[in-house]
Amino acid sequence: MCYEGALEKLRARGLKVNPERFLAEFDRMSRIGWVEGYGMNRLALSENHVAIRMDLMEQLKALGAKVKVDEAGNIIAELGEQGEAIAVGSHLDSVPGGGRFDGAYGVIAGLEVLRTIKESNVRLRHRLVLIDFNNEEGSRWSPPLLGSGLSCGVYTRDFVYSRVDRNGVRFEDALRNTGFMGSPENNISCNPPRFYVELHIEQGPELYSKGYDIGIPQGIVGIRVVELAFRGSQDHASSPLWARRDALTGLVIVKNKLEEYALERVDKLRVTIGRVNVEPNVANVVPGEVRFTVDIRSYDPNIIDETVKYIVENGEDVARRRGLDFEHRDLWYIERTLFDTQVVKTIEEACEEFEFKCLKTWSWAGHDAQNMARVSRTGMIFIPSVNGRSHSKDEYSGDEDLVKGLLTLLNVILALDSS
Amino acid sequence: MCYEGALEKLRARGLKVNPERFLAEFDRMSRIGWVEGYGMNRLALSENHVAIRMDLMEQLKALGAKVKVDEAGNIIAELGEQGEAIAVGSHLDSVPGGGRFDGAYGVIAGLEVLRTIKESNVRLRHRLVLIDFNNEEGSRWSPPLLGSGLSCGVYTRDFVYSRVDRNGVRFEDALRNTGFMGSPENNISCNPPRFYVELHIEQGPELYSKGYDIGIPQGIVGIRVVELAFRGSQDHASSPLWARRDALTGLVIVKNKLEEYALERVDKLRVTIGRVNVEPNVANVVPGEVRFTVDIRSYDPNIIDETVKYIVENGEDVARRRGLDFEHRDLWYIERTLFDTQVVKTIEEACEEFEFKCLKTWSWAGHDAQNMARVSRTGMIFIPSVNGRSHSKDEYSGDEDLVKGLLTLLNVILALDSS
Repeated sequence: MCYEGALEKLRARGLKVNPERFLAEFDRMSRIGWVEGYGMNRLALSENHVAIRMDLMEQLKALGAKVKVDEAGNIIAELGEQGEAIAVGSHLDSVPGGGRFDGAYGVIAGLEVLRTIKESNVRLRHRLVLIDFNNEEGSRWSPPLLGSGLSCGVYTRDFVYSRVDRNGVRFEDALRNTGFMGSPENNISCNPPRFYVELHIEQGPELYSKGYDIGIPQGIVGIRVVELAFRGSQDHASSPLWARRDALTGLVIVKNKLEEYALERVDKLRVTIGRVNVEPNVANVVPGEVRFTVDIRSYDPNIIDETVKYIVENGEDVARRRGLDFEHRDLWYIERTLFDTQVVKTIEEACEEFEFKCLKTWSWAGHDAQNMARVSRTGMIFIPSVNGRSHSKDEYSGDEDLVKGLLTLLNVILALDSS
Repeated sequence: MCYEGALEKLRARGLKVNPERFLAEFDRMSRIGWVEGYGMNRLALSENHVAIRMDLMEQLKALGAKVKVDEAGNIIAELGEQGEAIAVGSHLDSVPGGGRFDGAYGVIAGLEVLRTIKESNVRLRHRLVLIDFNNEEGSRWSPPLLGSGLSCGVYTRDFVYSRVDRNGVRFEDALRNTGFMGSPENNISCNPPRFYVELHIEQGPELYSKGYDIGIPQGIVGIRVVELAFRGSQDHASSPLWARRDALTGLVIVKNKLEEYALERVDKLRVTIGRVNVEPNVANVVPGEVRFTVDIRSYDPNIIDETVKYIVENGEDVARRRGLDFEHRDLWYIERTLFDTQVVKTIEEACEEFEFKCLKTWSWAGHDAQNMARVSRTGMIFIPSVNGRSHSKDEYSGDEDLVKGLLTLLNVILALDSS
């Protein structure tokens, strides 16, 4: 194995690192909610999400950690009595049909970090905190990062509690009904950790395809999601083409233009049309309305703004040429986040010490780390995703990479603790 | 009013025609299930559909008609004791968000025909029959024309009864639960009428835009509906464009090509992509699957076959170029129907007598008349649809046109009765 040197170095510092135990535990926990052929079925506060969180809390309590829940339903577990805190964590909720690694890897590795430090009787100068954020994905309640957003003071309680899922269930009611309604005094913003380090799969192909062990994002790209709607006229499929105002043509033309536009900016921009709703969605009726989302990502805020402008101009142009009505609105805009330069440097040095090949990069996906970056000195550690697959049942990271990420995280915590 | 001459001619033959009563009754009945701002909410065997059918049956019974229900839940009402039958009719179910005229016009005008003949004490040589067909639209249970299909012996009972709606409700169970499970001996195929004439709105812009009063279809175009599916890879919206296999591109390219293709054959062909389902349909996930229907209509069966071939070739080409999986299947194929030449001629003569400007045309929409044409000598009468709008809340036909259609239908029945 190519992490033997790293293992030895950590063991020399008194850490009883146990990669096999971690891999077994990851395998067991990350299968809660797994459906063969479909992928992960662990939407926020669903039955399976509650099940894995109960499992986590039991293990944390058995470790002697103090386990609290804040008013967003985030689980916050602490080891140690005094000093400032170093926090690790991620999330256990999933997108529908997602993978076993996204989020769960960071939480289960964080649990292993607490267990290793506790069992090794290593005394840290900082308290050690594990955070399991609630509703990170935004698949059940939009926008994403609701849990960290409320706890870090980005979103108001009223905004977060009033979010409604597709079945009309309010976030607040789901917190109460699942037993995850905690106290506002446990919110992270009341007592933020000094450092926050989140370990996560890359969710992109860069590390895997270029042969890196570890990715170190300098920050998280800005993400803006706009919703476009074209309204035409809901006609019978017998109507002649010249008499139609087919709303679906709006989607087709915008998608076509946008693909070309994004390919010209392939290193700087990513766009996705992910949600499409057609009304009335019946085979023999010309679509009267098409409503769809465009997810726009870039580390350059100007590129995001220019892209939205391009989309809106094109939408208006299509609408004019095709006799459609057009409207657009922002669903959410999460600005670019820059991570703490000292934390980024510490991760780099930790990798160098272990001779892990690391790449400075950007995170193209949103993470709770971006909300944590507002209250704590924050950084992230990425491991390779095979073929870059994520939000998919085919999401995969190999055991060696899972362990390398865990060892890097341990090394970073030790370095930050003595900083 | 421009139908005074026609009125006089009918009254001279002893018919107590009452256009005002008909318009008032049409207005009242056609509002059952109407939702302001949405349109018609009268899916087959829904609460509103049952309500309008109960209303119809009460009125038919009050007229002294013998009211029966067949094993497809079609309502069949008879006036007169002996002789062969002349039947009129249409359907009262609607597409979601449809108009007040499609189907309902033919049934309510048929009711007025029975009422007028009964009250006028005009003795016909034929029995007079009104048929209200069940599940014509196919919006709740696919395929369309289920009611006439079973009753006329086109579909088997097993096939029709096992149809399932989006909520998993079987057609057979809905028949039982709504009280519309009738007897097989009432099926039209057991005792078909000699003639069947269906009065309907055109659902296209031809009559309205060219200033005709009445359209006389020579037949109904063939309708083939295929379902296409592209499967790519369900990736996170953070993935770079070059690493994606976005299923939505399949829809976009096929729709684009198809529009061009259909515009080159605009008088002979109509194609519609009406139903689109994207999986997992979440803003921050690249679509892993797109499944959609293409509705293809032409009076020339060769054009339909060539179009399907074109679509499949294009689908395969897109799939190959974009690394997608592609599959296609026929959902249904209803072949072209030719109407009875004597009935078509009788309608033409009835219009000429009334000095109604009429146009020989094709029906681009499917109608129960195509199943009736297999057992009875059949024809249809169209009235103009304003701007050709149909399957839409904006579907509209003016009062004068509604009355002209009714008077033409009465005249045709008298002519067929003496033929």
